[in-house]
Amino acid sequence: MAKNVIIIGSTGSIGTQTLDVIRVNPGDFNVVGLSAHKNQQLLDDQVKEFNPKYGGTLCGDELKKMVTKNDVDIVVFGCRGTDLIEVLKTAISAHKHIAVANKEMIVEFGEEIMRMVRKSNCTFIPVDSEHNAIFQILRNRNKNDIEKIVLTCSGGPFWNRDSLDNITLKDALKHPKWKMGSRITIDSATLMNKAIEIIEAKYLFDLDPKQIEVLVHPECIVHGIVHFKDGSSIAHMGFPDMRIPISYALYYPEVKINNLPRFGLANQSLSFYDPDLQKFPSIQMAYDAIERKKEAALRRANEQAVEKFINGEIEFNQIFDFVQTHTF
Amino acid sequence: MAKNVIIIGSTGSIGTQTLDVIRVNPGDFNVVGLSAHKNQQLLDDQVKEFNPKYGGTLCGDELKKMVTKNDVDIVVFGCRGTDLIEVLKTAISAHKHIAVANKEMIVEFGEEIMRMVRKSNCTFIPVDSEHNAIFQILRNRNKNDIEKIVLTCSGGPFWNRDSLDNITLKDALKHPKWKMGSRITIDSATLMNKAIEIIEAKYLFDLDPKQIEVLVHPECIVHGIVHFKDGSSIAHMGFPDMRIPISYALYYPEVKINNLPRFGLANQSLSFYDPDLQKFPSIQMAYDAIERKKEAALRRANEQAVEKFINGEIEFNQIFDFVQTHTF
Repeated sequence: MAKNVIIIGSTGSIGTQTLDVIRVNPGDFNVVGLSAHKNQQLLDDQVKEFNPKYGGTLCGDELKKMVTKNDVDIVVFGCRGTDLIEVLKTAISAHKHIAVANKEMIVEFGEEIMRMVRKSNCTFIPVDSEHNAIFQILRNRNKNDIEKIVLTCSGGPFWNRDSLDNITLKDALKHPKWKMGSRITIDSATLMNKAIEIIEAKYLFDLDPKQIEVLVHPECIVHGIVHFKDGSSIAHMGFPDMRIPISYALYYPEVKINNLPRFGLANQSLSFYDPDLQKFPSIQMAYDAIERKKEAALRRANEQAVEKFINGEIEFNQIFDFVQTHTF
Repeated sequence: MAKNVIIIGSTGSIGTQTLDVIRVNPGDFNVVGLSAHKNQQLLDDQVKEFNPKYGGTLCGDELKKMVTKNDVDIVVFGCRGTDLIEVLKTAISAHKHIAVANKEMIVEFGEEIMRMVRKSNCTFIPVDSEHNAIFQILRNRNKNDIEKIVLTCSGGPFWNRDSLDNITLKDALKHPKWKMGSRITIDSATLMNKAIEIIEAKYLFDLDPKQIEVLVHPECIVHGIVHFKDGSSIAHMGFPDMRIPISYALYYPEVKINNLPRFGLANQSLSFYDPDLQKFPSIQMAYDAIERKKEAALRRANEQAVEKFINGEIEFNQIFDFVQTHTF
């Protein structure tokens, strides 16, 4: 039977790709609600195409009511920012199947969110490729068996460049592998995205920060690894395409055959490097922020810094100093 | 509480490494039975060390009685050949926790064995690194979600040598990565080991042979990959050390912390190649043997060919022709 889905942030990168996945097997899902922040034109088009029972909206209060409806099965959080935290909490309490691509809420409210998830025992699946990878690996496994996890990272466009001086906005927006929104592309270039993901992983999987490592992996095929205490390790691989984790999150616990791009390993090499912690101080800032309970401050300082870089107010290589100064 | 273990083939490569794993946490297991084929001296030493309640023996009939004892929890089949097939069947029917490193019985009696396993619903864990990898990945996953599996293969000592002419026994016994018995080391050099493993995988995981692929992976870190139908793939990694899958198989479903060697990925490359099917016709022979129900014949012909190569009766590169002629 078709599942009823609400997509929050339907006009963004995750939202539009979620609709792509839904279009492939239209009998599997009814889109019953759509919500977007600013792209009214695209939202109108989506409403015309999917004719959602509960309509399309730009408003948080309407959403809170929408996600509690009895006939809503799945809620996808593709929105950015923390404005909709009450909507997320409401969906958790209502025991919905939740696919969450929003980083900001996990970083700022992770402890509370995960406590609510454990209490409600709802399905709560991270969509972010690295966290989705770890989620898949840990499916039905015991958390206590984990030695450590590895989040991989493309390294962004600059990981093997000698210096981070004189980088233009255009340079920073060229991500080598992933098609993503512009802010997260810049966060990938500073590795601040990975710093944020370390914090997310700590909450999502209830780990000690010492159990979370980062490896640069330019081919972007391995998205996450769990090293278990007995010497066996399990890795998740996939073509770098967000529709793959989105499909997993929508259909879980089922697996739906699809024709998304596959990777081939024959005649390929997968390479891995420790991140350069001198050049990219962002990684260490994540551990410092966790230790000093400054996770929210770190995220906000970074958001401001990226804004300033986009507006031409600071240089690319000043982002780190700005974040450091405004966090700690 | 300590589990009671019988080790069949206790003086061989798998048997001695199983005892190594048991020695690390002697409180976790009682060795209650030991059996070996010919190394009476080592068997005597093992009996002296572990003082097994049901003794040590060279005899199959005694074993059959031994494995049905109520207080026997785990039976490890580290033996070679098919002589003890009745002992394996008895252990399955008696619903024991079974760790099986024996290839010959799976290849020749796979269908019957797996039917019995499904009926008895006993724990039946392959110890062979590739099959153990696939078993770990499929833990609690639905077989119907599999698109295909990949068994990796070091390629043996000759995979990037131009020709297989003039290879001495000494050359063929130099395996680049794994410490194993001599026959299996030669089978690795001909890739016949991988052919046998394709047949094993078909039975162990109830797959269509078209779903089973082989990749040469000289670093021997990735042991198996499952590609799921939704574009997500899961790989098992580990340092090439048989004690890792043995530990997994003994403790399953628990995971016991150990200090076996770990691999590091930083500054490493993992490379993958399609096997050269011209140079190593063994791989295609596996698919042909499955199609023509000649699996047992293939295995036996190969055993004879290896015997003849060891005795200097045929050249290394004549093994393929011998096997082809004596199988089909």
